Amino acid sequence: MILILKNKATDGQIDHVLARVEELGLQHHLSRGTHRTIVGIIGDEDKLREEPLRAISGVAEVIPVLPPFKLASIDAHPDPSVIDVSGVKIGGGNLGMIAGPCSVEEPDRMFRIAESVAESGANLFRGGAYKPRTSPYAFQGTGEDGLKLLREVGDKFSMPVVTEVTDPRLVELVAGYADMLQVGARNMQNFALLTEVGKTKRPVLLKRGMSATITDLLMCAEYILSQGNPNVVLCERGIKSFDPSTRNLFDVAAVPMVHSLSHLPIIVDPSHATGRPDLIPACALAGIAAGADGVHVEVHDCPEVAKSDGPQALLPEQYAELAGQMRKMAELLGKQISPLPETLV
Amino acid sequence: MILILKNKATDGQIDHVLARVEELGLQHHLSRGTHRTIVGIIGDEDKLREEPLRAISGVAEVIPVLPPFKLASIDAHPDPSVIDVSGVKIGGGNLGMIAGPCSVEEPDRMFRIAESVAESGANLFRGGAYKPRTSPYAFQGTGEDGLKLLREVGDKFSMPVVTEVTDPRLVELVAGYADMLQVGARNMQNFALLTEVGKTKRPVLLKRGMSATITDLLMCAEYILSQGNPNVVLCERGIKSFDPSTRNLFDVAAVPMVHSLSHLPIIVDPSHATGRPDLIPACALAGIAAGADGVHVEVHDCPEVAKSDGPQALLPEQYAELAGQMRKMAELLGKQISPLPETLV
Amino acid sequence: MILILKNKATDGQIDHVLARVEELGLQHHLSRGTHRTIVGIIGDEDKLREEPLRAISGVAEVIPVLPPFKLASIDAHPDPSVIDVSGVKIGGGNLGMIAGPCSVEEPDRMFRIAESVAESGANLFRGGAYKPRTSPYAFQGTGEDGLKLLREVGDKFSMPVVTEVTDPRLVELVAGYADMLQVGARNMQNFALLTEVGKTKRPVLLKRGMSATITDLLMCAEYILSQGNPNVVLCERGIKSFDPSTRNLFDVAAVPMVHSLSHLPIIVDPSHATGRPDLIPACALAGIAAGADGVHVEVHDCPEVAKSDGPQALLPEQYAELAGQMRKMAELLGKQISPLPETLV
Amino acid sequence: MILILKNKATDGQIDHVLARVEELGLQHHLSRGTHRTIVGIIGDEDKLREEPLRAISGVAEVIPVLPPFKLASIDAHPDPSVIDVSGVKIGGGNLGMIAGPCSVEEPDRMFRIAESVAESGANLFRGGAYKPRTSPYAFQGTGEDGLKLLREVGDKFSMPVVTEVTDPRLVELVAGYADMLQVGARNMQNFALLTEVGKTKRPVLLKRGMSATITDLLMCAEYILSQGNPNVVLCERGIKSFDPSTRNLFDVAAVPMVHSLSHLPIIVDPSHATGRPDLIPACALAGIAAGADGVHVEVHDCPEVAKSDGPQALLPEQYAELAGQMRKMAELLGKQISPLPETLV
Repeated sequence: MILILKNKATDGQIDHVLARVEELGLQHHLSRGTHRTIVGIIGDEDKLREEPLRAISGVAEVIPVLPPFKLASIDAHPDPSVIDVSGVKIGGGNLGMIAGPCSVEEPDRMFRIAESVAESGANLFRGGAYKPRTSPYAFQGTGEDGLKLLREVGDKFSMPVVTEVTDPRLVELVAGYADMLQVGARNMQNFALLTEVGKTKRPVLLKRGMSATITDLLMCAEYILSQGNPNVVLCERGIKSFDPSTRNLFDVAAVPMVHSLSHLPIIVDPSHATGRPDLIPACALAGIAAGADGVHVEVHDCPEVAKSDGPQALLPEQYAELAGQMRKMAELLGKQISPLPETLV
Repeated sequence: MILILKNKATDGQIDHVLARVEELGLQHHLSRGTHRTIVGIIGDEDKLREEPLRAISGVAEVIPVLPPFKLASIDAHPDPSVIDVSGVKIGGGNLGMIAGPCSVEEPDRMFRIAESVAESGANLFRGGAYKPRTSPYAFQGTGEDGLKLLREVGDKFSMPVVTEVTDPRLVELVAGYADMLQVGARNMQNFALLTEVGKTKRPVLLKRGMSATITDLLMCAEYILSQGNPNVVLCERGIKSFDPSTRNLFDVAAVPMVHSLSHLPIIVDPSHATGRPDLIPACALAGIAAGADGVHVEVHDCPEVAKSDGPQALLPEQYAELAGQMRKMAELLGKQISPLPETLV
Repeated sequence: MILILKNKATDGQIDHVLARVEELGLQHHLSRGTHRTIVGIIGDEDKLREEPLRAISGVAEVIPVLPPFKLASIDAHPDPSVIDVSGVKIGGGNLGMIAGPCSVEEPDRMFRIAESVAESGANLFRGGAYKPRTSPYAFQGTGEDGLKLLREVGDKFSMPVVTEVTDPRLVELVAGYADMLQVGARNMQNFALLTEVGKTKRPVLLKRGMSATITDLLMCAEYILSQGNPNVVLCERGIKSFDPSTRNLFDVAAVPMVHSLSHLPIIVDPSHATGRPDLIPACALAGIAAGADGVHVEVHDCPEVAKSDGPQALLPEQYAELAGQMRKMAELLGKQISPLPETLV
Repeated sequence: MILILKNKATDGQIDHVLARVEELGLQHHLSRGTHRTIVGIIGDEDKLREEPLRAISGVAEVIPVLPPFKLASIDAHPDPSVIDVSGVKIGGGNLGMIAGPCSVEEPDRMFRIAESVAESGANLFRGGAYKPRTSPYAFQGTGEDGLKLLREVGDKFSMPVVTEVTDPRLVELVAGYADMLQVGARNMQNFALLTEVGKTKRPVLLKRGMSATITDLLMCAEYILSQGNPNVVLCERGIKSFDPSTRNLFDVAAVPMVHSLSHLPIIVDPSHATGRPDLIPACALAGIAAGADGVHVEVHDCPEVAKSDGPQALLPEQYAELAGQMRKMAELLGKQISPLPETLV
C-alpha cells in the first residue's frame, strides 16, 4: 500500500500517519520527494485494505499494490481452472457451448430446441424458470414446474442444464434440479445470493454486471470461492455504454484481461451483449478468437412468440451454422468443444 | 406502440404483422411513407409491451409511446406524493435530511453523532447494520445488535431511523426496528427484495443503481408500489462514468427529470455520488437548488477509524455548517425542513 | 513519480530500472515490500512524464504524484482568476451570464433577443456564425456576415459578444469581431485551434468535450495558457452517458472539482447539458448553487423556426424568470452578476 | 419522420403541427391512439431533419425513420467498397495490415522497423510526424522532416505509408508525402479538417472518436464523401468506459454494425483500444473474427525509449508472431492480406 500525502502535509500530520501505521502493526518507509511525501507500507495489505487510510488528515491518495481478490487470483492458482459441469468441461482448452431459450416454455418446444442445439454441438442447455424482469407486470417464469421440465430435457439428451437463481431462498431448490446455477448480471452484487450459491457445490455461471469492472466481477467470484465452492465460470455479457444502437456493449477485451488476472474460465454471451441476432455470430466468433472458454447463445424456434427476449434469439438453423463456424475457429486455436457425456455425472 | 418496418419489408411480411396485431385483439393503422412503412397500434400498450414484436420478420424497430411504469407515473397521480416517515415528511415542499455514519458502530459514538446531527437540523438518522460489501473479507455489519442500537438512538432523540436491508429473508426483521428501509444501489434490481419490501408498509428509500436509467429506477419503484406499498422515496447517489476522479458521477438532472415523470419524492446523496468530502457541500446545495426533496449525508466524528466509508464522511461540525446553508437555500425556494416529531409515530 | 514493479521482477530488471532513472538525471528510492517492489523517483516529474517508463521491462504501473497541468493549477495561482471580457467580469464572485440564440439569424430577431436578455440581466450575448454541425447537409452558419451583425448588436446594447471559432484559419478574423472566443466541445482537443486562440489575447470560453475528464479539460486550458493567453473560462456542458433521456449528462460536480484544482473560472451550460427546456432552470440553479462562475443559456423567441438547436431554447420570458431566480441565488451565496459596462472596453 | 404528440396536446396544437408540415411541402398522416396522437410525415426526410420539429408546441418526440447519412449508407452502395491505397486493397475480403511506430523517429530505426513488419506481412507502414498530444509540453512530432523520412521508408520497401494530419492548413503538405491520411480520434468531428481531406483524393483513415456512436462516425465519413473523396476507411480504436483497467474499451461489435449500415471498410486498432501489449493479440484476432477489414498495430523495437506511446507498442518479434496468427485466421474466413505492390501506384 502506498500513501501519497497532500502537498501541504505538516510534520504533525506525517507523524500521525506513521503512528497510525505502527498501531496497525505494520512497517513504513518514508520518501520525501520534491513536491510530495510518500509513505510505503510494508506488510499484510489485506489488513490495511479495510482501514480508512484516506480519511487520515494529510493523506491525499491511497494506492494498493495488490489486487483485492485472492482465491480468484492467478497468483493463487497459476494454471487455468477446468470446471466440470456434470461431465462437460469448461476451461483450459475446453469450450462450454451453452444454448437454449431465454425462458423455459412448453415441453414440446423445449425438447425440440434442445435436440436441435445438441445436434449442432451445444453441450449445455439453458432456460430460465425464475426470471428477473424489469417490469413487475411481465412474465415471471414458470418456477418449479419449469425446473422439472428442464431436468427432464437435460436427462433425455444427457445434456447438463443451466438455469438462473434470483433469490437466496431458492438456491437449494434450484440446485436440486440444475447442473449449473446462473447468477444474472443484475444480481452480480447480490451478496446474500452469492453467499448461498457459494455454500452449494454446484458450478456457478456468474454474469458480469452492466457496470461492473473486471475487478468488481472477480470480487464477486471471490465471494463464492470464499464459501468453499471453487466451481465458478465467469461470463461477459455486455456493459453499459453511450451508444444506444446495441442493448449493451460487448467488452471482448474482458476475456484476455480475466485470463491475465485469474485462473477462472470466462465465456461470452453475445445474445445479451448485443441484443441483435444479426450481430451475434460476429461477436461469438470474436469471443472465441479472444480466447473465451465458451459461448452462450439464446436460441428459439419461433422468436415472435417467445415468452422473453424473442427479439434477440437465433433460430435453430442459424445456431447450427454458427456452431459449425465456432468449431472451426476452436480447432484453429487448438481447443475442443467438450462432447456430451454418456450419462450425466 | 409504433412499428417501423424494414426497408425491404414484403407485402407478405406486412400482412403477417397486421395479422399478429389483430390476433392480440388490437387495431392497426398502416402508413406507407416514401422509404418506410409504419404501423401504429391502437389499444392497450401494456399488453403489447410484453410481446416480442421486434422478433416479427420485417419489423425494424418497435417504439413505445407510453412510459412502462403506471403507479409511479405522474399521469396516475399528478400531485407530488408526501411520504410520512414516522412523523417526518418528505416531498411536496418538505425536505428529508438524512445524516449519520455509514455503519452502526459503538453505542457512545452513535448517540454522540445522532445528537449532533439532530441539533444541526437532520430529521432522519441513518446507520447500516447489514452492509453490502464488495469484499467478502470486509466488515459485514453488526446485524440485529446494530438494529437494536439504532432503534434506541432513534427513540432517544425522537428521530426516525433509516437502515439498509440486503436480503429478502431479513425484511421482516429489519422492518421491526427501522422507520424506513433502504434498498441500496447494488440491490436496486434485486426483484425478490423489492417484492418483500413492497409487502411491508414501511417507507422505502430506493437508491438508484450505478448504471440505471431514470426509467429503470422508476420501474423498480413500480415493483414496490405494485405490491401495495405506496411509500417510496427515490435517491440519486451517482452513476458510473469514465472520469475516475470521483467515486461516481452525480446526476443532478435526475431530480427535475424524476419530477417531470413521477409523483414520488427524490432526494440526493452527495456522499456516495462523489466519495469526496470536499465536494459534498457543493453537490448537496446543487441538489436542493435542483428541487431535491432531501439530502442524505454520511457523518462520522472520527473518519479515520470508521468501520466503513470513512474517507467520504463529513465531520459533525462540517455537517452543521452545511445544514445551515441548506436551510437557507430551502427557505429561498419556499421549502421547509420537517421538524422532528414530538414522539415517533 | 512512483513505479510499482511486477510481482516477479528480477534483480536484473530492477537494476535496469534504476539505471534508466539515473540516466535521466534523477534520484530513486527503492522500497521492497512483502509482495511488490516500489521505486520512488525524486526530481522533476514533468521531465519524467514524457518518458515511457511503463514500457521498461519489469514495471507494472507508473503513478504520477502531481497533476500534469501547471499554469492552470491552483498551486501556480492560489487565488481565483477574474477574467475581464470587455468590461464584464467572470470569476472570483462575479457571474458571467451568457444568453442568446444558438446561431446568428436575421438582424431584427438578433436585436430583439439581445434587448430582452440584457433587460433580464444577461451580461454577455452569444450567437454562432460558424457552426460545427454533425451533418454536412445542415445549416453551417452565416460566416463573416454573422460576425458583423453580432458586433453591431453587442455595440448597440454595450454587451460583449461570444461566438464560436472552429478553424485555426479563422481565429484572427473572428477575434476581430468578438469579445470572447468560444472553443466548442467537439474541438476541445483540436490542438491547432487551441494554439491559435492562445496566441490572441481574447478571452476564451473553452467547453468541455463530451468524453473529457476534468484533467483533460485543464490540459486543454494549459495549451491556451502556455501560448501566453491567460484569459480562459471553462464551461461544463454535459458529458456522454448511458441514459438517452437527456442529450448529455450534466456533471455539476465538475464545478467544485475544477475549483479545487485550478484558479480558472468555470461556468455551466444547462442548454447543451440537458437538451431539454424543462430541465434547464433546475440545472442552471444547481450550477450556481455548486459555485459556478456563470451560466450559459440558449434563448430564442420562436424556437420552432430556429436555424439550429431550437428544441433546447428557452423563450425570452422563460429566461427572464430564470434570470430572476439566478440573481436571488447568487445574492444568497454572496456573489454578484457583473453589470453591463458603460461602453465596451 | 414520426412525431409523437404530448399527452395533453390540444386540437389547436395538433392543427398547428399539421399546418407546419404542410408549409414545408410535405404530407401528413394523423393517427389518434388511446393515449397519444401520432403524426407520420411523408416525404423527404432530409429536408425535415434540419427543421426544429421538436420545438413545436405539443410535440413530445421526433423519431426519424432513416439514417442521417446517405453516401456512406449501404442503401446507396450495397456492395462493400474496396479502397486502393497505392496498390494495397482494403475491404471486400482484402485486409489492410497497418504497422509501425507511433511517431516517426530516427532514420535507422524507421528503416529497421519497416523492414521487419513488411517481412511479417504488414502492407501499410505508419508513423506520426504531427502528433496531437494532450500536453503542450510533450513531443509534438518532427513535422515535414518526418514526412520526408516516412516517404523514403515507404519507397524503399514499396510499402504505402499512413500518417496523421491534425490541421486543415497542413492537409495539402501531408497529402504530398503520404499514401493515406489519418484523421485521429480527437479530430473525428473537426469538420474543417474533414472538409479539407475530402477535397483531396487520398484515401483517409478515419478513427472513431472516443465518445462517438456509430452514427456519429458514419456522419463524419459522410463529410469526407460529400466533398468528393470516396476513399474512406473507418477505424475502431476504443471508446470511453467506466473501467480504468484499459486505456479505452474495444468495441468489437462496431465491426459488424458498420458492415450492416455502410459499404465502407472498417479496421480495428487494438493498440489504442487497450493500451496494453498483453491484450493486443487477443483483440487483434477478435477483430478479424468479427469481420474487420484490417488491423492497425503499433510496433517499436525499443519501447522504453519511444518518443510516444512506447508502453503500448509490440516488439517486432511479437508482431511477427501475431501476424502469422492473423493470416491463419484470415484464411479460415476466406480473406486475404493484400501483398505489397511491385511499385507504389
